[in-house]
Amino acid sequence: MPQHTVTSYDDELKGLASRVAEMGGLAETMVNDSVSALVRKDSEQAQKIVQTDKRLDQLQHELEETAVLIIARRQPVAQDLRDIVAAMRISSDLERVGDLAKNIAKRVIAIDNSFNSKRFALGVEHMAELAQQQLKSVLDAYAERDAEAAETVREQDDEIDAIYTSIFRELLTYMMEDPRQISICAHLLFCAKNIERIGDHATNIAENVTYMVTGSQPQDERPKVDETGFVESGNA
Amino acid sequence: MPQHTVTSYDDELKGLASRVAEMGGLAETMVNDSVSALVRKDSEQAQKIVQTDKRLDQLQHELEETAVLIIARRQPVAQDLRDIVAAMRISSDLERVGDLAKNIAKRVIAIDNSFNSKRFALGVEHMAELAQQQLKSVLDAYAERDAEAAETVREQDDEIDAIYTSIFRELLTYMMEDPRQISICAHLLFCAKNIERIGDHATNIAENVTYMVTGSQPQDERPKVDETGFVESGNA
Repeated sequence: MPQHTVTSYDDELKGLASRVAEMGGLAETMVNDSVSALVRKDSEQAQKIVQTDKRLDQLQHELEETAVLIIARRQPVAQDLRDIVAAMRISSDLERVGDLAKNIAKRVIAIDNSFNSKRFALGVEHMAELAQQQLKSVLDAYAERDAEAAETVREQDDEIDAIYTSIFRELLTYMMEDPRQISICAHLLFCAKNIERIGDHATNIAENVTYMVTGSQPQDERPKVDETGFVESGNA
Repeated sequence: MPQHTVTSYDDELKGLASRVAEMGGLAETMVNDSVSALVRKDSEQAQKIVQTDKRLDQLQHELEETAVLIIARRQPVAQDLRDIVAAMRISSDLERVGDLAKNIAKRVIAIDNSFNSKRFALGVEHMAELAQQQLKSVLDAYAERDAEAAETVREQDDEIDAIYTSIFRELLTYMMEDPRQISICAHLLFCAKNIERIGDHATNIAENVTYMVTGSQPQDERPKVDETGFVESGNA
């Protein structure tokens, strides 16, 4: 980052980046806690996540307002402008990650009194571990301004997508085997989809780290496709 | 919009707004076509939507680049800055609307050879009509800079959410009645969810129209909650 004559401008830019880091930490915790609440059927923890999401929304709101103020007052160009735009975009992705974790938490509350869901939730848990790892890696890449690490995150999203497709099929099979499982498996389908989307947001963040560092977005098609659209919809 | 001494600056701002309008028209068409393809099981039309989405992504990419350039070169403040920020945010929501329509289209391709899905798709179609109406109204509100109309759109999102919750229950019932329907109903669950999310994006756009016109975002909780998280997950 170039040196500015007005020190407080640098402080403002650093303040944005540390606000992004704070949001990232909160989003990571929410994802971790929501999946742990799902596996352990802990509706008390799930309730807490719903509350935490309000804090994340508020942080994003404040970050956006601050960013617009900095643009208006400091009239940034080049690297500084990219830093600010990237912070705004990344905070928007993190806010959505929080929404998705909250959505999982709300389903935990719904399926709390249902019978044993642990067997079904294992696949979702494994997928969530990968998504959390992606989120952690991309936030590190942001903090380190490391475009290469960001690109690695982007490339690894395929793996989460593949697991999602496999879980989708697995859950449909459980439903067909035992209609009493349909409701819980439908909720788990959405949980799995939410985690797949958390992976997509990690990919978006990776692209914005690349933009921030290099000044250009990756140009090839983003690997954020839900392949279950192509899973055969058979008659049995 | 205040007059500027440099005419081309006004042109640049108007160019952004008309780019948003173009994206809006494209997103509306995609939503309309994807649901019509779903109801008519028209996989050819569905394929076209997947292609159209690339154009929408490209338009958003161009709009963002243009907006950042304008901020860098013109150093806008106050109303102009809000216009630019709103255009960026709205284009991001429209790009996501396109993704959701594309996702519906891809499911059409998957369920094409399945047996009669029309009975199940009717609820989804009704919901989609409401979402399309919301999208159209909010794009009109943007074009007219009408914060009151935007607020009306925001308030009406509850209706889509309520229909979604009802469709969610209905589809689970179909699944329980006949396990052969599970796969197609799972796809329709996601289609319904996608339409509910299109409604959420219309709400986001409405909030950004309010921000653009009045300078502040609506402060109360956004009505974008998926209430199926609270649908009882019974054992039968």
